[in-house]
Amino acid sequence: MCDKHGMPHTTYALIMAGGAGTRFWPASRKHRPKQLLALAGEEVLLRQTIDRILPICGMERIYIATGQHLVDATLAAVPHLEHANLLIEPVGRNTAPCIGWAAAHVARRDPDAVIMVLPSDHHITDVERFRDKLELSVEHARTGVITTIGVRPTRPETGYGYIEAAPGPGPVHDVLRFIEKPDLETAKTFLELGTFYWNAGMFFFRAGDMLAAIAEHLPALSEGLRELDRAAAADREAEEVARLFPEFPAISIDTGVIEKMGQLAVVPGDFGWSDIGSWLAAAELATRDDDANSAPQGSVLVASAGNYVVDMRGSSKKRVIALVGVCDLVIVETDDALLVAHRDASQRVRDVVGVLGERGDDELV
Amino acid sequence: MCDKHGMPHTTYALIMAGGAGTRFWPASRKHRPKQLLALAGEEVLLRQTIDRILPICGMERIYIATGQHLVDATLAAVPHLEHANLLIEPVGRNTAPCIGWAAAHVARRDPDAVIMVLPSDHHITDVERFRDKLELSVEHARTGVITTIGVRPTRPETGYGYIEAAPGPGPVHDVLRFIEKPDLETAKTFLELGTFYWNAGMFFFRAGDMLAAIAEHLPALSEGLRELDRAAAADREAEEVARLFPEFPAISIDTGVIEKMGQLAVVPGDFGWSDIGSWLAAAELATRDDDANSAPQGSVLVASAGNYVVDMRGSSKKRVIALVGVCDLVIVETDDALLVAHRDASQRVRDVVGVLGERGDDELV
Repeated sequence: MCDKHGMPHTTYALIMAGGAGTRFWPASRKHRPKQLLALAGEEVLLRQTIDRILPICGMERIYIATGQHLVDATLAAVPHLEHANLLIEPVGRNTAPCIGWAAAHVARRDPDAVIMVLPSDHHITDVERFRDKLELSVEHARTGVITTIGVRPTRPETGYGYIEAAPGPGPVHDVLRFIEKPDLETAKTFLELGTFYWNAGMFFFRAGDMLAAIAEHLPALSEGLRELDRAAAADREAEEVARLFPEFPAISIDTGVIEKMGQLAVVPGDFGWSDIGSWLAAAELATRDDDANSAPQGSVLVASAGNYVVDMRGSSKKRVIALVGVCDLVIVETDDALLVAHRDASQRVRDVVGVLGERGDDELV
Repeated sequence: MCDKHGMPHTTYALIMAGGAGTRFWPASRKHRPKQLLALAGEEVLLRQTIDRILPICGMERIYIATGQHLVDATLAAVPHLEHANLLIEPVGRNTAPCIGWAAAHVARRDPDAVIMVLPSDHHITDVERFRDKLELSVEHARTGVITTIGVRPTRPETGYGYIEAAPGPGPVHDVLRFIEKPDLETAKTFLELGTFYWNAGMFFFRAGDMLAAIAEHLPALSEGLRELDRAAAADREAEEVARLFPEFPAISIDTGVIEKMGQLAVVPGDFGWSDIGSWLAAAELATRDDDANSAPQGSVLVASAGNYVVDMRGSSKKRVIALVGVCDLVIVETDDALLVAHRDASQRVRDVVGVLGERGDDELV
């Protein structure tokens, strides 16, 4: 991809891979959040995320934002990643400071380079179509308009934010507004209207455009980022990150910047997206037999249907799992825990983590 | 207990402890049937059975009938038992040959000694009251009448045989008839009538009386037992058992002898009896919390009720069990298997054993 003067356009990626998972306990732990789990397919989600974008953006231009406690596990999951490509947040400050930092980092080399901000823990079924939308979004961002991908809704979901797109033909639309998680009636209306899309946290912008937007809407953060630039010039960026990050406003890029922009574009997409929000969502992505069961090879299932059984034990010791007369259960085994949950209650798995934390079972959370 | 001539009356026990459990998989295996499991209380059921009768009958007069494959496990479960007190059946031939053999064995020393035949794998809540009934039955058997204990029904159970007792006062009644497993309507009628009792497989008789009854109703077995007597006199009983046992008729003492007797007595009893016929029955015996859950200490239960969770792993490695939004499950863990069953389907656990056997997973059955 070259511009009219023959200069190469570069594309970077920022993969958001911090956070602590509780919804996928007992598989997820403080030191092994969701993106480090193989919830759909053989590879962990972070690795799948990277493999999806490698044809667009070489490994050397992929940055991963994460926390100090996840550095080792992240490098282990992505063997070819340089340590320098980790943006290690000393404390979590939501997404705006981290994305600002990445923009500053990239802008020092090339303020016209486009950055794709992508979640690390989502699942995409149709990868080819997804890449088409990425490329379209990158090209549009290169015109100077911050761009997002809107996922075409498949159900009246009340758990996501929505993006209203201006009607009209073509693959790119103006954004009319962002809407917080709606109630069910509103979500049903959105689904019928067809111009509302799920906000999946994917943003595309030139590094310089994002820095300008931050300067306008989050001046304190902007000032901090300029201090980081000066520190980087003096080769002491890491120390300054440690000092400045805790003072940055803890605000999301959506609330702090994106939703305040006068002009934004959305590229609607339909590529089999899931944010895998719970064990139930993971179960829906699994290969199932005629009775809608998904279980490890060798399991014995008698009069049982709709169950999702995962063996995540590290041990290779043979262990048979038998189900008799049970339906719609999520069963997860690890070396130190066994979860048996009803699919409809899979959101309450986090309550277990709460109880374990309260009673001081730190190694289990 | 002495008779009118001052001679001591001796009492023996024959504990029926053979069989192969499939209903309590994965806890029960071919080499660890139900009586060798601690399904209610700290001790295994066989040990509890023996502890219940020790005040009546010293260890040296307790015989345990079992199979060759269970000898080691049985001796391990009952440390003070002499090997000579094991009646080891070379092949299973139902109960009549085994009881006949025990009667012959005892009659060589004392044909007037009373033998109590007791199952090894039942649960009794009120042990004192149970022992009163045992003593009453033993005393009545000493008069020359084969006696049984009838368990007062607490529900219209269709899974047991019944004994109809002659109405009247007193603790001992004539048996009018034995009834095979009834249909539900009949069972309800029995419950209302109040003179029908569950046949719990407990029989009391003088050794000589049983041998006489066998001579009358099972002459082939009787002849074999006389051969065993001659072999025992020549100190080669074990060899003859190996030769003769496979030729004995495979018939139960109920069908072969008891139900053909002209005179029989029944001692009705009400002592909190359970044959623990399935995981559901075991669950009903367990101590439960306010939500009717029974689970290992340290388990985390969220929005769950009526569950029975058993950790029978040999390993002491800490492992937490969490239930979320599930009801009425039976969950059993062993080192090499995990069972999750609905309580109402607990009878179908044997189907799992069938599948494992068919596919040659011999170490798991």
